[in-house]
Amino acid sequence: MTFRAQAAREERGALAPLEYEPRPLGPHDVEIWITHCGICHSDVHLVDGDWRMGSYPMVPGHEIVGTVATVGQGVQGLAPGDRVGVGWQRGACLACPACLAGDENLCARSEATCVGHYGGFADRIRVDGRFAFSIPQALASDGAAPLLCGGATVYSPLRRFTRPSMSVGVVGIGGLGHLALQFARAMGCEVTAISGSPDKEPEACGFGAHRFLAARERGALRAAAGTLDFVLSTVFVAQDWPSFLGMLKPNGILCLVGGPPEPISVPAFALIGGQKTITGSAIAGRPAIREMLDFAARHGVAARTERRPLVEADAGLAQVRAGKARYRVVLTA
Amino acid sequence: MTFRAQAAREERGALAPLEYEPRPLGPHDVEIWITHCGICHSDVHLVDGDWRMGSYPMVPGHEIVGTVATVGQGVQGLAPGDRVGVGWQRGACLACPACLAGDENLCARSEATCVGHYGGFADRIRVDGRFAFSIPQALASDGAAPLLCGGATVYSPLRRFTRPSMSVGVVGIGGLGHLALQFARAMGCEVTAISGSPDKEPEACGFGAHRFLAARERGALRAAAGTLDFVLSTVFVAQDWPSFLGMLKPNGILCLVGGPPEPISVPAFALIGGQKTITGSAIAGRPAIREMLDFAARHGVAARTERRPLVEADAGLAQVRAGKARYRVVLTA
Repeated sequence: MTFRAQAAREERGALAPLEYEPRPLGPHDVEIWITHCGICHSDVHLVDGDWRMGSYPMVPGHEIVGTVATVGQGVQGLAPGDRVGVGWQRGACLACPACLAGDENLCARSEATCVGHYGGFADRIRVDGRFAFSIPQALASDGAAPLLCGGATVYSPLRRFTRPSMSVGVVGIGGLGHLALQFARAMGCEVTAISGSPDKEPEACGFGAHRFLAARERGALRAAAGTLDFVLSTVFVAQDWPSFLGMLKPNGILCLVGGPPEPISVPAFALIGGQKTITGSAIAGRPAIREMLDFAARHGVAARTERRPLVEADAGLAQVRAGKARYRVVLTA
Repeated sequence: MTFRAQAAREERGALAPLEYEPRPLGPHDVEIWITHCGICHSDVHLVDGDWRMGSYPMVPGHEIVGTVATVGQGVQGLAPGDRVGVGWQRGACLACPACLAGDENLCARSEATCVGHYGGFADRIRVDGRFAFSIPQALASDGAAPLLCGGATVYSPLRRFTRPSMSVGVVGIGGLGHLALQFARAMGCEVTAISGSPDKEPEACGFGAHRFLAARERGALRAAAGTLDFVLSTVFVAQDWPSFLGMLKPNGILCLVGGPPEPISVPAFALIGGQKTITGSAIAGRPAIREMLDFAARHGVAARTERRPLVEADAGLAQVRAGKARYRVVLTA
């Protein structure tokens, strides 16, 4: 039994074929034939060693859709032939307070799909079946794969912090941002796309934005002062955080799902005066992921993808590294 | 008609007697004979010009308790002889979304009791009666005066962000902190006092803390990592904010009600990884103030005060400036 993957042999190394023997199938494990795997910006960070996580050879990939091949004897609710998805997380203790609350993403013993394990840039994978989610029939596999990480990451804070009456800003219209626009619009919110790339305006509006704010235009952020209830920042580079707080209404919330290496620095009174909040959100727990998939199916939320065969994983990763994915590159079997 | 007050004539100036003619009594105004006025650290900031707010002569004082002398013709629910309190805020538009939601403290047209008006270090004051709150009979006036600003400031975020099951930390055991310990304990929380002054431990426990954390002891904050759901910071000087975030459990909240002049700076991943939050809170809306007074009366929450006659206002302010109030200086008629 040999699994065929695409792996980096060293930090920033090119992805090249790797064959490996999988771990034995545990009682709760499922084996999945992978048909689609999105390339998330986190895969770039992992391969490039930006986060000092994982080891080499490294098989990235954590936006997986595929077909169940085999199930361990303790697996419930999944059977061979089922179409499932796997995201960033492949395991948790399922016993701590966070897990019991459905916040498995916050479990101290959380295991990541492609950190310390071989991930989804491969023909097959074995993971804990409790972290494999049935994909609703209405969702196409390539559009659904990026929902497993990118979609969950933006859906979870929108679900926690917003109501349909709210004005929501999405900063960064890329892999995560273009999904956030769709979700926020489907939730009934008034949606503002905020991007440093003015050429993205027509597509952002197509994804659901009611208006577009060109973040680098002089005075643009200031002109939007006090207009937003919730701002979701999906970008990985330093921003003018005090101006983002300034865009918030009183009691407004700025939520980071991506972060720059530089510290976030804001005046205390920018938080106190208008009772404003900076918070962070990390992927999603299992209840939120299930809900997100059903919500996406009901509202037609899906990633806009460019497909490449798995053997082009290295070129796909380079495309994401260069910020040239429109809006998600998905590797296919 | 002459009101007698204690005023600073210039930045950092000594408080000295000032007599002034009050504004005409408006239809919604009440005139109050002031019996007690707490000295809040904000009064020091105002007199010293730290916040560049207000003008001179300046009459500080915004933790007022007294007796209604006269009411305007449009005043409802208050009559001469009633005992009332007035806090930081003396007016708001009462028509904007924040006001309609009971968040008058977030109204853009909020008026402060002693900024642009003569405040409570005086024998009398005229304010909008809608910002004068009946004091429950169970509360003594001197212990109640500091509730109007200090009490409201800590009660409001405890009410918004905590549940009785939570572990709550209070940073800074002074005028605000000693009230926060009492409120959090009365709300049913597990309470940790966090202070740089180890000598305050016995009193902090007397105010309701289950345990005391000496913040400057090497390794103390790290030893408490991951133990608190909510941390309320009442201090005005820079802190080790990343360590405070580290003390929080996943989904935990750090709330500032006082802030240092230096920016708050934390790594993005200290927020994202455990879904942690930094927020701020500013005094309280009218519903929260009413609720706070009733809650304080029911649970015996009161400021521990040192009383001084109004003519000693300058010495009292100096005591607060020096951090020597235990725990609130209250000026009396």
